[in-house]
Amino acid sequence: MKKVGTQTVMFDHPPTIVDTASIVGPKESQGPLAKYFDQCLEDEFWGEKTWEKAESKIIKETVNMVMSKSVITGEAIDFCFAGDLLNQCISSSFGLRETNIPFFGVFGACSTFVEGMCLASCLIDGGAATNILCATSSHFCSAEKQFRFPLELGNQRPPTSQWTVTGAGAAMLASSGTGPYITCMTPGKIVDMGIKDSNNMGAAMAPAALQTLITHFKDTGRKPSYYDAIITGDLGHIGKEILIEMAETKGYNIKNNYNDCGVLIFDKESQDTHSGGSGCACVGTTFSGYFFRQLKERKLNKILLMATGALTNATSSQQGESIPGIAHAIAIEN
Amino acid sequence: MKKVGTQTVMFDHPPTIVDTASIVGPKESQGPLAKYFDQCLEDEFWGEKTWEKAESKIIKETVNMVMSKSVITGEAIDFCFAGDLLNQCISSSFGLRETNIPFFGVFGACSTFVEGMCLASCLIDGGAATNILCATSSHFCSAEKQFRFPLELGNQRPPTSQWTVTGAGAAMLASSGTGPYITCMTPGKIVDMGIKDSNNMGAAMAPAALQTLITHFKDTGRKPSYYDAIITGDLGHIGKEILIEMAETKGYNIKNNYNDCGVLIFDKESQDTHSGGSGCACVGTTFSGYFFRQLKERKLNKILLMATGALTNATSSQQGESIPGIAHAIAIEN
Repeated sequence: MKKVGTQTVMFDHPPTIVDTASIVGPKESQGPLAKYFDQCLEDEFWGEKTWEKAESKIIKETVNMVMSKSVITGEAIDFCFAGDLLNQCISSSFGLRETNIPFFGVFGACSTFVEGMCLASCLIDGGAATNILCATSSHFCSAEKQFRFPLELGNQRPPTSQWTVTGAGAAMLASSGTGPYITCMTPGKIVDMGIKDSNNMGAAMAPAALQTLITHFKDTGRKPSYYDAIITGDLGHIGKEILIEMAETKGYNIKNNYNDCGVLIFDKESQDTHSGGSGCACVGTTFSGYFFRQLKERKLNKILLMATGALTNATSSQQGESIPGIAHAIAIEN
Repeated sequence: MKKVGTQTVMFDHPPTIVDTASIVGPKESQGPLAKYFDQCLEDEFWGEKTWEKAESKIIKETVNMVMSKSVITGEAIDFCFAGDLLNQCISSSFGLRETNIPFFGVFGACSTFVEGMCLASCLIDGGAATNILCATSSHFCSAEKQFRFPLELGNQRPPTSQWTVTGAGAAMLASSGTGPYITCMTPGKIVDMGIKDSNNMGAAMAPAALQTLITHFKDTGRKPSYYDAIITGDLGHIGKEILIEMAETKGYNIKNNYNDCGVLIFDKESQDTHSGGSGCACVGTTFSGYFFRQLKERKLNKILLMATGALTNATSSQQGESIPGIAHAIAIEN
């Protein structure tokens, strides 16, 4: 692999995404992408006593599923990259503690899934690993409880707010295979434009997405039209519009081939999620369920997958801090 | 780089640790390693209004210090790996948001510092980067507040408890230099032996340390005597004794050259920290302050640095969960 420009690494031996898996909650099961997910749950608890335990079970079963689908299991998996939104990433560590796979915990808030795939690609390209598992999860109920208000309060959500996706996504990366391939990565910088409204994460993250996007184009010499689709993780309806506008002011027109997983996963009219979906599982399930299949069926052949994260917590908001954002991008090509 | 055995990666072009930096709080400044740290603070706030903001300032200034000491700054730094114990790792993301360096957030609880160095070594060895910054922090007051009790309660601490180190450590890794070199890594698996006492982290983490240690010896064919020093992160007095005993039952005698940063950083008799130090900054400051200097002065030439982490949070403990542990090891040699 080789670094090009200021932030991008081109892979000499691009890893293949062998297979993916996705499990989603009941709300996502009523959304427009429902038929693409491997499993749709009927309730938020899935037989567990707490939302946190349910989230751990979701990531655990998603990981079991991707091992089963890819027929890469046990000791054949060199490393695992995982992380989530729960404090100290407990969904991942409890959900994956029985896998017996060397484990790298990663945290990039909702950008975690792509952050894991970036690092996994480096390890595979460099020869440190043959197969690496990447996974992430989020849960609407555990996230609301932790970041905003207990659900029991029935708080009204402002129109700029987003709905944390309940679910998990997992991808199995390997040194050889028939593609799609991760050809390069552009990891993001922390960008903080001073947004303080924790109910407007899309606006807080859009500047970070812009920084990564423009740098990716400059580093690679590619134009937006190089890609069949440019996809952000969870900017939602508001963040998506901001990114389109900001990119235009920088001379990049992404209107024709850009969309956001938070926009795609819920129906804006009927599902009442306001500005759309969010959470680690937003890009995790939408990529693993929908986009991976589009790539395998060659309906899409070149995508730029850019997951976005808000690096904030409940304490920092209470202490008057703004919300730093980050966005990690990978190019996935047939 | 090449994977050997089940968990170890040997580096073909071992990265150099160019320099390190460490800043510690007032209690660490009264401990036996005080003279080795770059800066000793007189109070826990360092002019900030909250402990969280103070922790962010500590990691920020430690990172500025390692850039200044190593004379590697700005765009010459390809990537940064950082993480900490605060929910959603806000010490790192707020402390480092102005660095303008592509950022990978990592979370391995108190194993974060070595996890970052593992991944940074892979990126450098593979050709993705020339210089990478690794950093971590912890703060006694913010950690107690978040994981246990508000300090204002004046709760009595049980004899098995450990004292979270206030401070930050940072290391600058580069593709070329005069050493010491990171020659191989053995990333850990999540190990959960069912310990539920969140005031006995040493016991919870020791089995993970054992798994990594024994696997490292098997993978590399090395014996404990290969190393001038084997160092764990924060098993403390109790965990250290457990690890020595368990290693012996597996046929490895580490009594003569093994120690723990949590044991070294505080004086057992006079400082009243019970089972010793803990926290991301325990190994972060002890390595950056003390061990790195021992390596540079060739008082030590081969060390195995194994940081240990407890992958738990306040909610999981309240929900009756046990405490999974993890331990990541790197060999550092002149």
